[in-house]
Amino acid sequence: MKASFPPDLREQIAQLHEDYAETVDRLDIDAWPEFFTEDCLYLVTSRENHDAGLPHGTIYCEGIAMVRDRAAATRDCTVYEPRFLRHFLGRVKIDAADGDTVKARASVLVVESVSDKEPHVLVVGQYHDVLRRGADGSLKIKERRVVYDNYRIYNSLVFPV
Amino acid sequence: MKASFPPDLREQIAQLHEDYAETVDRLDIDAWPEFFTEDCLYLVTSRENHDAGLPHGTIYCEGIAMVRDRAAATRDCTVYEPRFLRHFLGRVKIDAADGDTVKARASVLVVESVSDKEPHVLVVGQYHDVLRRGADGSLKIKERRVVYDNYRIYNSLVFPV
Amino acid sequence: MKASFPPDLREQIAQLHEDYAETVDRLDIDAWPEFFTEDCLYLVTSRENHDAGLPHGTIYCEGIAMVRDRAAATRDCTVYEPRFLRHFLGRVKIDAADGDTVKARASVLVVESVSDKEPHVLVVGQYHDVLRRGADGSLKIKERRVVYDNYRIYNSLVFPV
Repeated sequence: MKASFPPDLREQIAQLHEDYAETVDRLDIDAWPEFFTEDCLYLVTSRENHDAGLPHGTIYCEGIAMVRDRAAATRDCTVYEPRFLRHFLGRVKIDAADGDTVKARASVLVVESVSDKEPHVLVVGQYHDVLRRGADGSLKIKERRVVYDNYRIYNSLVFPV
Repeated sequence: MKASFPPDLREQIAQLHEDYAETVDRLDIDAWPEFFTEDCLYLVTSRENHDAGLPHGTIYCEGIAMVRDRAAATRDCTVYEPRFLRHFLGRVKIDAADGDTVKARASVLVVESVSDKEPHVLVVGQYHDVLRRGADGSLKIKERRVVYDNYRIYNSLVFPV
Repeated sequence: MKASFPPDLREQIAQLHEDYAETVDRLDIDAWPEFFTEDCLYLVTSRENHDAGLPHGTIYCEGIAMVRDRAAATRDCTVYEPRFLRHFLGRVKIDAADGDTVKARASVLVVESVSDKEPHVLVVGQYHDVLRRGADGSLKIKERRVVYDNYRIYNSLVFPV
């Protein structure tokens, strides 16, 4: 039997996805850590590694301090060619909802535009999320595993995906 | 005058799309035939042929036996480079709903990832569906014509789209 | 504090997007001007120009007459290789709704298919819309700025995006 979830839960997660995507797509790197809980995990990894249970992360941040450090490094230290990202999200699939915790997935396509090139697919894959509801009712990201189908990432990941 | 359809019908079709896409994207080829009725048609064809009324199919399966045969052949016989697909769907457009039968369309983008290459657009086009409601209330695919805009398909179609 | 908007307003805008995309994607150039108000602005411009406040438009139509002229020119005069477009839209983000006027945005991906080539990303970016409700309750486009992330447009824009 398929579990059934409150009808507005999917809508609320879709809104979280929109806000996250919109924040990254306008390159507001300082606002990015606000989507995560204090004890979060943010991991970008290949589907090949994920399926094999291997923990390697192309980006690996454990805890909000590492997320903030990543944001600060991207803003202040990293040297990179100017670029824009644009996220496209598939429909939210809720796998479990138990008390304040929700497990959900969604397909994600990130198209990158850099100078002197046509836009290209930077990342295609799936978000594997564990979300937690805070005291104010809002959802934050406890775990986000960005599992990409790509064989490789073109050039490099500068901004979060 | 525009026809009006039950408000949750679009939602139900979008859910069918999500389930179909999710099944194919995790390469669960054995579960794929379950989306179709016994007397189904599954056709992948170019927009050029479709618009000209030509019946050629890049993939052509008439009846559930051919669909199952396609699934078995893909699982057991076909030799191909490992690959991942990822479906992105546009909003459902309902063209007609009459009794147990619904005609609907949706734009579809399938991005393929193979080894040693960047991800690429495998198929961009539109699903032209005839859906039928079963005794249990669920929708199954009576006809799915995947009409692709592509001039050609890169390499080959291994998994269904 | 975040503003809150009528729950069906987003749905109505998503429907407008679907209708617009569907019209362009079936190359029904004659129906395209019907989406705009008499005093409309239709502007396709780069994100770089938009962010710098520069008014250059890759396509620039001020008023319905220029929109109709663009449509007529595309139908009757322009010489171009046959092509198909396919629009994929992100979730609608409403920025303001005041009386009959709505400001909204949505990410947009337009994939183009031309002969003898793989499909490619023609435009990736965001719609910046000002919509106006008519006497019959329907929404029309008062302003559509198609702000593309692309560094450049491949070949040329023939059809509207």
